Amino acid sequence: MQNKINLERGFSTPEFEERLIKAQDVMQQYKLDGLLLTTPQNIRYFTGYDSQFWESPTRPWFVVVPASGKPIGIVPEIGESEFKKTWLEDIKTWPSPRPEDEGISILKSTINDLKKTYGQIGAEIGKEMAMRMPVRDLFKLKEIVKTNIVDGSDAIWEMRMIKTNAEVERIKHICSIASDAYYDLPSKLKIGDTEREAVNKLKIDIINRGADNVPFMPGISGKGGVSQIVCGPSDKVIENGDILFIDTGSTFDGYFCDFDRNFAFGSTTSEVEKVYEILWHATDAGINAAKPGASTFDIFNAMNKIISDGNTVGNNVGRLGHGLGLQLTEPPSHRPGDNTIIKENMVLTIEPGMEYANGKMIVHEENVIIRKDGAELITKRAPKEIPIIK
Amino acid sequence: MQNKINLERGFSTPEFEERLIKAQDVMQQYKLDGLLLTTPQNIRYFTGYDSQFWESPTRPWFVVVPASGKPIGIVPEIGESEFKKTWLEDIKTWPSPRPEDEGISILKSTINDLKKTYGQIGAEIGKEMAMRMPVRDLFKLKEIVKTNIVDGSDAIWEMRMIKTNAEVERIKHICSIASDAYYDLPSKLKIGDTEREAVNKLKIDIINRGADNVPFMPGISGKGGVSQIVCGPSDKVIENGDILFIDTGSTFDGYFCDFDRNFAFGSTTSEVEKVYEILWHATDAGINAAKPGASTFDIFNAMNKIISDGNTVGNNVGRLGHGLGLQLTEPPSHRPGDNTIIKENMVLTIEPGMEYANGKMIVHEENVIIRKDGAELITKRAPKEIPIIK
Repeated sequence: MQNKINLERGFSTPEFEERLIKAQDVMQQYKLDGLLLTTPQNIRYFTGYDSQFWESPTRPWFVVVPASGKPIGIVPEIGESEFKKTWLEDIKTWPSPRPEDEGISILKSTINDLKKTYGQIGAEIGKEMAMRMPVRDLFKLKEIVKTNIVDGSDAIWEMRMIKTNAEVERIKHICSIASDAYYDLPSKLKIGDTEREAVNKLKIDIINRGADNVPFMPGISGKGGVSQIVCGPSDKVIENGDILFIDTGSTFDGYFCDFDRNFAFGSTTSEVEKVYEILWHATDAGINAAKPGASTFDIFNAMNKIISDGNTVGNNVGRLGHGLGLQLTEPPSHRPGDNTIIKENMVLTIEPGMEYANGKMIVHEENVIIRKDGAELITKRAPKEIPIIK
Repeated sequence: MQNKINLERGFSTPEFEERLIKAQDVMQQYKLDGLLLTTPQNIRYFTGYDSQFWESPTRPWFVVVPASGKPIGIVPEIGESEFKKTWLEDIKTWPSPRPEDEGISILKSTINDLKKTYGQIGAEIGKEMAMRMPVRDLFKLKEIVKTNIVDGSDAIWEMRMIKTNAEVERIKHICSIASDAYYDLPSKLKIGDTEREAVNKLKIDIINRGADNVPFMPGISGKGGVSQIVCGPSDKVIENGDILFIDTGSTFDGYFCDFDRNFAFGSTTSEVEKVYEILWHATDAGINAAKPGASTFDIFNAMNKIISDGNTVGNNVGRLGHGLGLQLTEPPSHRPGDNTIIKENMVLTIEPGMEYANGKMIVHEENVIIRKDGAELITKRAPKEIPIIK
């Protein structure tokens, strides 16, 4: 329970004002008269509003951020009383469900009322974004508004990629909670646990330590490594010689950590030990390469050189780390072709992986925040040698 | 731990064949040459494939269901090995992330290869659906495929609204787990708990009893009722005279329950007792009205009559229940204007609520499966009198 510190949830009005100023600056750069937002993360970023009702796809929620002035909320009546507690002043509602006009007519007049400087607004229609509204309604909206709806995702990511201090505090907090839970996990694991049992031990500990939620926790085991890292846990019993890979995206106040750990059961092999050590050093190289002015490709190369020297079979992950924040994964990606320039206050994963033999993969992962002089590690570094569960 | 029965996760190939036959029948009715699927729930419905990686928005996943023949998977390389374990035979991959062509060129050729009978395919662009892909890529796709992409949501909901026996089994199982956890909760609650502490007690118990996940668990308290049911829990301390409302959408093998419970702390008032009783009877009326041949409006009316007689101030929820299954809420909605005809094997919530005084709301909820002769209750009925936590 050592993580139950008094980091308050929620953000101050000056925090949202700071975000809005940054947004309006970026909007001018991208020649946008406004932003149309529909996803929980983007709405939360600009308003602080969070809802359990995101889980129900019935009702869309909208926020319009104008090029000047405060964001405007357009929300189903069921959310009105709580939305009024945000720093927003202009909140419009409609009685939902109402499929024939699920907020679209209010959205139309709100968008048409925006000051038209550039004649276009940005929506979440591009990079690593999926709108949370029926596309049919977006088509309808495009026809009835007197402005162009263009891709606003690059503008949105440009803001969200650089974290404020208050955002960093939350990410550090959830990283600390998960780090401590991972650290205590070996004492709770035993040969004969199923993958699901092992995962639940960690999940419950993370909840008890003060996390809000655990939306992401794959747990996969295999002899000397795992064949994949995207599905699981299953009811497979973990046996002598297995390696258990657990990854987690747990959240505090909406913000994610994203890092994994590996545990050997019973015994290990010199090959596993060697691969684990290579990845540990690749992680170091990635952390050292992650500094303002470097590119995501530089970070990739620093890790990839060490992995390649270690005779990897391949890696189907497609990248060696990425951004994180209100989402488990956010731009940029450490991979050839991304070439984003690293800036102060980006929060990134450093995630080298190796398939060292067919179907035997080991992946390491740590989280860092970029400071003026380089990366600050915000996870408690994985042990240099793979922990062995007896 | 009494719910840890041996209901296996995952479905048999005959189950998917049955779903496919139903789908292809509906597709013919809607004159569709295929379905383009992107959401976790729709992909899981047709393939059984589940992934922790849905949580990362970086990579889209696609399934095309042709009017004849088996579904085709188009998935990022990272998911290939696990996707190959599904009953699908035709699986195409691309190295992702690759934002300049995130699966779109393979999707194009797959769609163009479909037999063209009607010249149109259905996508998740309508009712209560949001596509899980960048809309920009959908625009691009619309331009490069030789078929029309139209709204397929009505066709998809027509299938998914009627549950198979195997689906019903899973929903019943998670309802049973949550019912037992709710039943045991009063012994764990105490005056002075925060809303968050109360919620976590239930959440951890539900996980320990064998649920896979708890994506939805609002917990809100207030004097004599709650002012809203969409946000929370917070760190508010629950005091004498408060009512704690907890709702949960927990999952087993992808399938949701969705029902709530109310707990009075310390003492209660005759007004609360009366409202609770009215809602208990309204629930009864809703359950009795839910039978094949009735409409969602009939179910609404049966409950609404009792609520109106009880002098409700209003209800901003906009409906008195809905469908559930792979999603927390699915069509239909018990509300004026919906008018869906109830059929055998629909799974529905019966959810009457009353704001009996300004800011004081109580909501009841149970889940039923529609049988030939009427509704079968699949939650353990809320107690007839509100439980009081001393």
